Amino acid sequence: MNWLGRRRPRVVAPRIRSRSTTTDSTTKVDLADLTPELDVFLGKAAYLELTLFENLGRVIANAPSTAAKSSLSRAASLSLEKHRGLAAEIERSGTSVAAVMEPARASIDRFQRVTQGADWFESLVTCYVTAGFLEDFLVRVAEGLPRDAAARVSAILDTETGESDLARELAAAIQANPRLASRLALWGRRLVGDTMLIARSMLTQSANHVSDEARIEPVFTELIAAHTRRMDALGLTA
Amino acid sequence: MNWLGRRRPRVVAPRIRSRSTTTDSTTKVDLADLTPELDVFLGKAAYLELTLFENLGRVIANAPSTAAKSSLSRAASLSLEKHRGLAAEIERSGTSVAAVMEPARASIDRFQRVTQGADWFESLVTCYVTAGFLEDFLVRVAEGLPRDAAARVSAILDTETGESDLARELAAAIQANPRLASRLALWGRRLVGDTMLIARSMLTQSANHVSDEARIEPVFTELIAAHTRRMDALGLTA
Repeated sequence: MNWLGRRRPRVVAPRIRSRSTTTDSTTKVDLADLTPELDVFLGKAAYLELTLFENLGRVIANAPSTAAKSSLSRAASLSLEKHRGLAAEIERSGTSVAAVMEPARASIDRFQRVTQGADWFESLVTCYVTAGFLEDFLVRVAEGLPRDAAARVSAILDTETGESDLARELAAAIQANPRLASRLALWGRRLVGDTMLIARSMLTQSANHVSDEARIEPVFTELIAAHTRRMDALGLTA
Repeated sequence: MNWLGRRRPRVVAPRIRSRSTTTDSTTKVDLADLTPELDVFLGKAAYLELTLFENLGRVIANAPSTAAKSSLSRAASLSLEKHRGLAAEIERSGTSVAAVMEPARASIDRFQRVTQGADWFESLVTCYVTAGFLEDFLVRVAEGLPRDAAARVSAILDTETGESDLARELAAAIQANPRLASRLALWGRRLVGDTMLIARSMLTQSANHVSDEARIEPVFTELIAAHTRRMDALGLTA
C-alpha cells in the first residue's frame, strides 16, 4: 500500500467537491486493463451501493433530530437509486441480482463492520468519507467497461450525491460541539485505509503486480486529494 | 377501541391486495370532519413514511441473504419516495420539514419502538402489516384535505407499494421454516392495536367523541379486512 505514503499535501480552499473537479484536474489514468468483467463489476458496485445505503439508513434511524433525519434521507434515496439502477443492469442480462452480488458480500460486509464507527457522528463521517471516495472510484472504473455498458453505468453512477447534505450536518455538529473535531478527524483518517482496500478489491489483478499498482496509484492519489478536500470542507485535517 | 371487537370474519381467497379492492368494496366513508390541517397531516404522514422507511432499512441491513436485501430495497425506495414527496409538499408552503414533523415524533417513535419485533422475521412482518395498514389509512385521510392538496397528496401516496415483495419474502421464510407461522401470526395480531392507535392519532377530535368514533369505525373495519387479506396471503390467520 505504498500509495498511502504518497499522499501529497495539497492546499485547496475548503469547498464542497463537485465531481468534475476531482476527475478533470489530473491526467486521466486508464484502468481498463484492471476493470473486471461487466457482471462482476455490476455485482460489486450494486452491493456496495446497497451497503452505503444501509449505512445511511442506520444514521437516519439514529439521528438526533428530525431535521437531520430529513436532510439525510435525500442522500439515502440517491444511493438506493444507484443500487437499483445497477440491479436493473444486472437483470438486463437475465441473471439474478442476488447471485451476481453474492461474491462481493463477504469483503464488503467486513468493510461495513470495521467502518461502522463508535457513535452517530463517526457513522456519519463514515457515510461521508467512504461514499465520497468509493462512488468517485466506481465512476472511474466504469470508464473501463465495454463502451455501451460504460455509458449506461456512468448514467447511473456519475450523478448527484448527497454529499453536500452530509457535509452540512457534520459541519453543524462540529460547530455545536467543537471537541468533536479532533476525534472525527482521526476517524476520517482511519477510514482511508479500509476504503482503499475495498476499492482495490474491485479491480482485477494481472500477472504483473508491480505494473498493476503503478496503474492504480495515480488514481488513488487523485481520490485522496478529493478526500482531503472533503475533510477540509468540514474544517478537519485529513 | 370498540372497533377491535367488530372485526368481521371475512373469507377472501388469499391474494396480494391491490389497493383498489380495499377501498372500493365498501361505501366510502368521509373522514373530512376529522382530517387535520394540511400542515399537520403532512408532518405526521412525512414522519410516518420516514419511519416505515427506517424499519425497512433495518430489515435490509439484517437480511439473511443478498436476495432478500435486493428484493426489499424496492419497498424501501418507495417509502422513501413518499416521504420525500410529502417533504416537498411541506417545503412548498415555505415551512421547515423538520419543524412540521416534530410534533409527530414522540408518538411515532414510541410506535416504532413497540412494534420493532424480536427478530428479523417479526420485523419484516411489522413492515408488511404496519405499512400496509397505515399507507391505506393515509390515502383515506388525504381524501379529506382541501381539494388541490388532496389531489397532490394522493398522487404521492396512492401509488405503488413494495407489499408484494415483502409478502414473497415472508411466504418463502415461512415455507422454509413452517414453525415460524404461528409465531408470526401472533405477532401480526399484536401489531394491529398499536397500528390502529397511531392511525387514530393522525385524526383530530371533535367535541363529540361518540360521533367521531362512529365515523372512524367503518374505515377501520375496512382496513382490518385488508389486513386479514394480507395475513391470508401468507397463509396466516389474522
